[in-house]
Amino acid sequence: MGYALTTIVDRPFEETLAATKQALADHGFGVLTEIDMAATLKKKLDVDIPPQFILGACDPTSAHQALQAEASIGLLLPCNVVVRYDDDAHTIVEAIDPQTMHLLTGNDAMAPVAQRVGSGLSEALKQLSS
Amino acid sequence: MGYALTTIVDRPFEETLAATKQALADHGFGVLTEIDMAATLKKKLDVDIPPQFILGACDPTSAHQALQAEASIGLLLPCNVVVRYDDDAHTIVEAIDPQTMHLLTGNDAMAPVAQRVGSGLSEALKQLSS
Repeated sequence: MGYALTTIVDRPFEETLAATKQALADHGFGVLTEIDMAATLKKKLDVDIPPQFILGACDPTSAHQALQAEASIGLLLPCNVVVRYDDDAHTIVEAIDPQTMHLLTGNDAMAPVAQRVGSGLSEALKQLSS
Repeated sequence: MGYALTTIVDRPFEETLAATKQALADHGFGVLTEIDMAATLKKKLDVDIPPQFILGACDPTSAHQALQAEASIGLLLPCNVVVRYDDDAHTIVEAIDPQTMHLLTGNDAMAPVAQRVGSGLSEALKQLSS
C-alpha cells in the first residue's frame, strides 16, 4: 500500500498553503503544528530546498478514540499534511494515509478511526483541487 | 515489527518531560513541535486524559537526506517522541521506530537514514533510564 493521499493544486504555493489550512478546518481538522521545512533547513544547515510546510492536522474526537484504542498512538499523531512547491503555478498537497495507523499497530480497533479520518482528509484534498 | 522504541523512566512526569528534551538535544535532535495532548483534548472536547506530550524531534542532517531520497517523506517527519504519565513515580517515553519510514516507503535509500536516526533515538532513551 502507499502511505500518501496526494493531489496537485493548480495554484501557487502560498495561496495553496492558506487554502489547505481552510480545507482542513472545513472538514473538522485543527492544525496543531506547523513546520516550515525550508526555513528550518536553511537555518540549521544553510541548505536550500523548495518551499515545504508540514502541517499537523488533528480531529480531536478521532484522536481521543485512537488514544483509547491504542496507548502508543500518539507516536502517529497528528496526521501530517505536507504542502510543497511543484512549480510557480502548481503545488503538491499530500496527507498521510491514516490506514498506516492500522497497518503499523496491527490493531483492528484502529480500522474505523483510520477509515473516518481518511475520508475527511480525502474530502479536504478534493476541495482543494476542485 | 513494532513501531515504538520504549522505555519506562523512574521519575515523575514533569521531570521526565524536561529530561527527555535534554536527552534529545544531547543526541542532536531539535524539538520542532510540542503538543500537550491532555490540554488539547480538555480544551476541544472537555475530556480528561493522563498527562501526555507529543514532541516532534528532528535531526536536520538526517531530515535533509531523507527529503532527497524520498520526496514525500515529510509525511513521516519529524520523529515523534511521546512522554506520557504512567503513575506518580513513573513515566513512559516512546519514540517512533524510524524503521517504519523504510517499511512504509519501501525505499531502500531510507534504510541507512532510518538506522542512524533509530540509533540516536535509542541512545537518547537509554540516557533517560540510566
